Amino acid sequence: MKDHKKTRLVEVRTKILKENDVVARALRQRFEDEGVYVVSLVSSPGAGKTMFLEQTLMRLRDQYRVAALVGDLATENDAQRLARTEVPIRQICTGTVCHLEAEMVRSALGEWATQELDFLFLENVGNLVCPASYDLGEALRLVLCSVTEGEDKPLKYPTIFNTADIAVITKMDLADVVEFDRAVAHHSVQSVRPGMPVLEVSAKTGTGMDAWIAALSSRRGTPRACGVVKS
Amino acid sequence: MKDHKKTRLVEVRTKILKENDVVARALRQRFEDEGVYVVSLVSSPGAGKTMFLEQTLMRLRDQYRVAALVGDLATENDAQRLARTEVPIRQICTGTVCHLEAEMVRSALGEWATQELDFLFLENVGNLVCPASYDLGEALRLVLCSVTEGEDKPLKYPTIFNTADIAVITKMDLADVVEFDRAVAHHSVQSVRPGMPVLEVSAKTGTGMDAWIAALSSRRGTPRACGVVKS
Repeated sequence: MKDHKKTRLVEVRTKILKENDVVARALRQRFEDEGVYVVSLVSSPGAGKTMFLEQTLMRLRDQYRVAALVGDLATENDAQRLARTEVPIRQICTGTVCHLEAEMVRSALGEWATQELDFLFLENVGNLVCPASYDLGEALRLVLCSVTEGEDKPLKYPTIFNTADIAVITKMDLADVVEFDRAVAHHSVQSVRPGMPVLEVSAKTGTGMDAWIAALSSRRGTPRACGVVKS
Repeated sequence: MKDHKKTRLVEVRTKILKENDVVARALRQRFEDEGVYVVSLVSSPGAGKTMFLEQTLMRLRDQYRVAALVGDLATENDAQRLARTEVPIRQICTGTVCHLEAEMVRSALGEWATQELDFLFLENVGNLVCPASYDLGEALRLVLCSVTEGEDKPLKYPTIFNTADIAVITKMDLADVVEFDRAVAHHSVQSVRPGMPVLEVSAKTGTGMDAWIAALSSRRGTPRACGVVKS
């Protein structure tokens, strides 16, 4: 590729990214004003985001007002699956776009009364690369990796770890079967992002889920509503 | 985003993709002229591409002249791991680019005497979305999914399945543990790509590897060299 074409692509990308930042900043301000704590989830396809989110919603829904917005290239499978939690769910189909952008979130929220929520979850498209470049206005970003993916993902996909706040190692119930080496995995995370909190969970067996919910609740603070408000 | 900006981005993307096609076409012609059969591998991060490739190289290397070019955002872990096979390996570090492009392949090949090879493997960056748009001049594209990713990946990432020739279900040794439903998985593949060949393998236990090598060898035809030529 010739240099001037490269330059032009970079210029256009930079403009798009800047526009995304403007929308993301506005979203973040809106969420703060409304008192809704927004958590996004990024991971490879199949790392268990939806299962983890489903179990998180189940554990939160009696005490908090929760909702989720889920992104996929195609299908509404995730939204249908999450609908079993009986919390409000919306799906964003991105078509061929490999990540969520702030504008997609803003537009999908539409008339949703997010000011009535305590937590809003944003499940990104399964992709460990491109979502790194797009701020969604979230307060907390989780990057999930399953034990079946091996221990070196942070080293191979450092950018996404650098944009996330917490690393979640999923499918811990399979750790022995796949001979997952915890020490190596933790070392990988710390070497790309020193001090990053790491949680180990199995949404299937429940391992680590209480610790995650406790960590999340403490970040959110106490619920605004005194009573139990079911969605 | 305003419409005229969208249009401009699409224009630039189209130009880049067209440039990629020009390079890919030239590569394909070169590989055909040289008689080297080029196979690319795409999958999510952690689906087992490197392990599958390692076991493939081990099985081919005594009978064929083989080499591999592996793409990653960062680290040379895969190249180091594959070096154990004692076949020639080169690594492409893409930085923040989420896929391989034909120009990266052309440039990484450099002075490599590919005309002396029977097989060249290209391992893409772990990403089920973006590599779909970039032809690399390969003769055969495999899309790999592990049993741990669930059965619905073809439905959720249809484009990549539509650009690939064979679907490979990896980590079959974990199928029972994760309660993998073969019928559902095969149905998912066939519903996005009717007639697509599907292989089930475990590079760890060797299950399905002989069938894969046989399929590959028959696509390649007989080796050009009469004797055994080790790389």
